[in-house]
Amino acid sequence: MSRCLISQAEVQGFIERCMTTVGTKKHHARSLAEVLVEGDRRGHYSHGLNRMDMYVKDIQSGICAKDGEPVVDKESAATALVDGKNLLGPVVGNFCMNLAIKKAKEVGIGWVVAHGSNHYGIAGYYAMQALKENMIGMSYTNTSPLVVPTRAKECTLGTNPISMAAPANDGDSFVLDMATSAVALGKVELHHRRGDEIPEGWGCDAQGKLTPDPAKVLSGGGLVPIGGCEATGGYKGYGLGMMVEVFCGILAGAEYSNRVRTWKVTDRVANLGQCFVAINPDNFAPGFNDRMSDLLSIQRGLTPAESGSPVLAAGDPERANMAKCEEMGGISYHLNVVNFMNECATRIGAGTLLPVDRLLSN
Amino acid sequence: MSRCLISQAEVQGFIERCMTTVGTKKHHARSLAEVLVEGDRRGHYSHGLNRMDMYVKDIQSGICAKDGEPVVDKESAATALVDGKNLLGPVVGNFCMNLAIKKAKEVGIGWVVAHGSNHYGIAGYYAMQALKENMIGMSYTNTSPLVVPTRAKECTLGTNPISMAAPANDGDSFVLDMATSAVALGKVELHHRRGDEIPEGWGCDAQGKLTPDPAKVLSGGGLVPIGGCEATGGYKGYGLGMMVEVFCGILAGAEYSNRVRTWKVTDRVANLGQCFVAINPDNFAPGFNDRMSDLLSIQRGLTPAESGSPVLAAGDPERANMAKCEEMGGISYHLNVVNFMNECATRIGAGTLLPVDRLLSN
Repeated sequence: MSRCLISQAEVQGFIERCMTTVGTKKHHARSLAEVLVEGDRRGHYSHGLNRMDMYVKDIQSGICAKDGEPVVDKESAATALVDGKNLLGPVVGNFCMNLAIKKAKEVGIGWVVAHGSNHYGIAGYYAMQALKENMIGMSYTNTSPLVVPTRAKECTLGTNPISMAAPANDGDSFVLDMATSAVALGKVELHHRRGDEIPEGWGCDAQGKLTPDPAKVLSGGGLVPIGGCEATGGYKGYGLGMMVEVFCGILAGAEYSNRVRTWKVTDRVANLGQCFVAINPDNFAPGFNDRMSDLLSIQRGLTPAESGSPVLAAGDPERANMAKCEEMGGISYHLNVVNFMNECATRIGAGTLLPVDRLLSN
Repeated sequence: MSRCLISQAEVQGFIERCMTTVGTKKHHARSLAEVLVEGDRRGHYSHGLNRMDMYVKDIQSGICAKDGEPVVDKESAATALVDGKNLLGPVVGNFCMNLAIKKAKEVGIGWVVAHGSNHYGIAGYYAMQALKENMIGMSYTNTSPLVVPTRAKECTLGTNPISMAAPANDGDSFVLDMATSAVALGKVELHHRRGDEIPEGWGCDAQGKLTPDPAKVLSGGGLVPIGGCEATGGYKGYGLGMMVEVFCGILAGAEYSNRVRTWKVTDRVANLGQCFVAINPDNFAPGFNDRMSDLLSIQRGLTPAESGSPVLAAGDPERANMAKCEEMGGISYHLNVVNFMNECATRIGAGTLLPVDRLLSN
């Protein structure tokens, strides 16, 4: 399949233009575009441009609000409860993360939760905002049910991601950004499209049994928590998914568990719960960044079990992907995705198209 | 193997007496005994009476301090850095958790980290202290290196547990208390002793390859992170272990990663890093406990994939174990363990022995 090179500025401008065309405020559109472009730059295409049409539809149908700003319901020096007012997820996310960072500057930590939010792109984007202030950042969100609890056969939890970013020296960092399911749904879909089997421990069928057949996972089955089956510790992944739900839907008073609307069914507002944390290392032991750099060096310096597969730290694969984008002068997209998004832009009359003339050799 | 019933008060008194005999202060001995008894009552025998001789030796050798109290190095309304003064882990843990709860009462959250600490028993014990105040509690600790990072063949991380407790209605709760390794070392040791193979995804050999042979895991190999190998998401467990290290050794300025002393080698002080968090739901959306109860009911009410294996929530197996202790009027121990501890008591001249006359039929 052909791939096509598009500059970061072009994707950013395209998404902004499409979103403002359907009535999104300019600065809201910019926030959304930034998160999506960052998803693509980091190589997480499932959370980038690829999802723009979903956000366009959400605004067009009115299921997601385009007017207003998030509001603080309740706050203390270190905490806040925010009403996202059903605005775009990145608008709510940026508002909350900025507030968390502000509190962490004052009292060492900010713990902010939001109800009334929507899909906010990659969780790591918000956690990473704290790096700019040399702080630890965390972000969590609940999502539509796709994960089957250990011993069950029905999806009642989302892929509920955990993200945590911590700064080291010279711009280096640790960036964990992971679903609490063994894998993302997109990986199962990809195997299905290719006609490949999936590894044992990714998903289960409608009877709750692990299956190598992606079709069974996608029709009536579900993803399994990290750890796979009960014998290999899947109950831990299930517990982590529940922990994220407590931080999000439960603490925020949003929808939760199987009360969150079904994935891709937009019959009612999402009312997602999200959690944003900033922690200021200045409030703890001096020398945080030095120790972080040392911690990362210890792992990266290990002799690999297989030569050619270096030991990495969380965030390293994404860093490599960003360096590749830098080198190529843009992001590499499947031509199909670009064409699909151009059709979307044409349909809504955005008066802008992504360029399709810079084809890549692979 | 014979088992023997011992009342909670008897175990508590025995451990206190042994610890004070070697010079531990009475209230420190009580703290340690309480954590160990709670470990046993919850069915986590690897973190209970079974470990008393280790603590006795730590005090006898002077590698762990018996005088003094933990000290606050630095604090804000919501955070604190504590110097554990190399005291017993539970002494440091209780001090920090109480401080976190106090801060959470005032500003909604308390985030307290300690350096200069020692093994503190089950992480969940501290998280659960918050339940008494109807708060969310969390606790993390780093530990001696036993876990091999994804793609590596050398242990550089501990089993670094994550614990999180959240209150529901009528005394019900969610209590997650999990190592970030696929399983605890004790489970591998148990299979080795029995001559059984271990499931794929528990541990690796000295070349970093997953192995079904527990002997290889125990000699030169190591535990693998939750998720098992790279294809099944082991890098997520590795990332979670690193996250715990950031909260503990890195934030606290304690030892970290492979700089923590080797397990069971007490040639130098442990200087473990630990993290304790309390979050007050009153600072967020009203109705927290109701939603928690509903969240737990949703999962527990699911039709099991296999009848007879009900869907549980984290903390349910431990609750069942405590109910069994209640019913039996005590804790069931292997006679071997009881005899071993009695020998320890005799050796140090504690003048107390555990009763061995209430044998159980299985």
